[in-house]
Amino acid sequence: MFKRVTIIGLGLIGGSLAIAIKKKKLAGEVVGVSRRKTTISRARTLGIVDSATLDLKKGVKDSDLIILTAPVLKIIDIAKKILPCLRKDAILTDAGSTKEVIVKRIEGFLPAGVSFLGSHPLAGSERSGLDHIDKDLFKGAHCILTRTGKTNKAALSKLKRFWGKLGMKVEVMSLKKHDKALSALSHLPHAASVALSNTCAKKDLRLAAGGFRDTTRIASGKPEVWRDIFITNRKNIAKDIVALKKELTKIEKALKRNNSAELLRLLKKAKNIRDGI
Amino acid sequence: MFKRVTIIGLGLIGGSLAIAIKKKKLAGEVVGVSRRKTTISRARTLGIVDSATLDLKKGVKDSDLIILTAPVLKIIDIAKKILPCLRKDAILTDAGSTKEVIVKRIEGFLPAGVSFLGSHPLAGSERSGLDHIDKDLFKGAHCILTRTGKTNKAALSKLKRFWGKLGMKVEVMSLKKHDKALSALSHLPHAASVALSNTCAKKDLRLAAGGFRDTTRIASGKPEVWRDIFITNRKNIAKDIVALKKELTKIEKALKRNNSAELLRLLKKAKNIRDGI
Repeated sequence: MFKRVTIIGLGLIGGSLAIAIKKKKLAGEVVGVSRRKTTISRARTLGIVDSATLDLKKGVKDSDLIILTAPVLKIIDIAKKILPCLRKDAILTDAGSTKEVIVKRIEGFLPAGVSFLGSHPLAGSERSGLDHIDKDLFKGAHCILTRTGKTNKAALSKLKRFWGKLGMKVEVMSLKKHDKALSALSHLPHAASVALSNTCAKKDLRLAAGGFRDTTRIASGKPEVWRDIFITNRKNIAKDIVALKKELTKIEKALKRNNSAELLRLLKKAKNIRDGI
Repeated sequence: MFKRVTIIGLGLIGGSLAIAIKKKKLAGEVVGVSRRKTTISRARTLGIVDSATLDLKKGVKDSDLIILTAPVLKIIDIAKKILPCLRKDAILTDAGSTKEVIVKRIEGFLPAGVSFLGSHPLAGSERSGLDHIDKDLFKGAHCILTRTGKTNKAALSKLKRFWGKLGMKVEVMSLKKHDKALSALSHLPHAASVALSNTCAKKDLRLAAGGFRDTTRIASGKPEVWRDIFITNRKNIAKDIVALKKELTKIEKALKRNNSAELLRLLKKAKNIRDGI
């Protein structure tokens, strides 16, 4: 499908992408770029890339697909650096969790010929790094591609096929719709998980059982990654936090009023929604 | 250890207890009581009890240990019914998730000779029923026993050994301390999970990935069970919800002020707490 694919960032997403691409034979050659020497040598040892380099410009040279995996704000910085070095017909994409800021900024400095498309494969884990990569990380998960007025249609349809071949359910949506949906379904749960952990800072944590463990699991995610997500989707997330607090207040009021029927209603409603997934 | 143990309620906890007791040979005979005919015959088919009955009074006759597994308020109702039928030296305990209301009420109508002790094995799942029972459900988990001014010391030490032999880490604490600790670490996460599900009622739930699934998993728990927990620990939970809303407000304010450093601080603090478990 591609002659040469370069993956920038060899963490959980980048590393899993590298092995998935090789396994599905979607590229003649897979090049990995990392800013850490240890990651480069580990990627070589694991054999997940055909070559690996610390040098961004060398890494992207002659590639027809370049995938940026990094915290959201880093994606923008790296794009700025590599854009002048890309082949004229190259497709550049990313795997960032917010899209409006990334796509608008990168479209702003895109040279003629090069296509940029925002991708968001909804796969991941609270774990990070090459030690946790998984060739099936993307299988069966959703991947959202964003479309703007500047989107190259041929590049869009090629990327749709690319993510589809990795086993993903691909959907195309606008930047705003993506960021709004992900705020509620991914960024808000993260904020709730963080707030819950912080609420229990001084509690008897040895007694934390399955419920606490599950609801706070994602709070173990990388702080720098999530700071960038929060900052670049801050208006939607702030709005969703207000909505969550309202739902919490409903429970709080029912508790204070000893309103058993209202508690049962809220519990049943939530079970119904959760069981429906 | 016991001649005859009766387990009232053959759901996930009751059924798992039955097979764990048989496996560890802690009783000469295990009797199961359920109010459903289908459960009785299923328990017999699975061979998890030596005998099973729909009749509470028949079920508890001559037993030296009776364990009540049911939603919290049902535990109190059932205790009231069976207490007059218990052997004079019997030990009665429960597996309810709140303790102050249960223990104070049951101690209020305890006949001479019978000991009642509140137990809370911190094991469970969002799943329920005999289809999900697990002989290792209790292994390695905490079990809290509560002590009051009326606690029979011999019964307390016997129950400590009993739960210990099921592989549990046993701790003894006051009713108030138990309900306060569990509010923060179990009941608050449940409330958060319910509120989060309800906040996302009208969202694109097909896009819900691992983070949403994990943070809302426990919202699938039985509404009736959780209504009773909420009602019988309502003051602590309401207070903890207020604390959680304050933590959410910290994130909300940092988002509104575009305060990257404060977001990173909150994310790092939460990660540190969560990784420490």
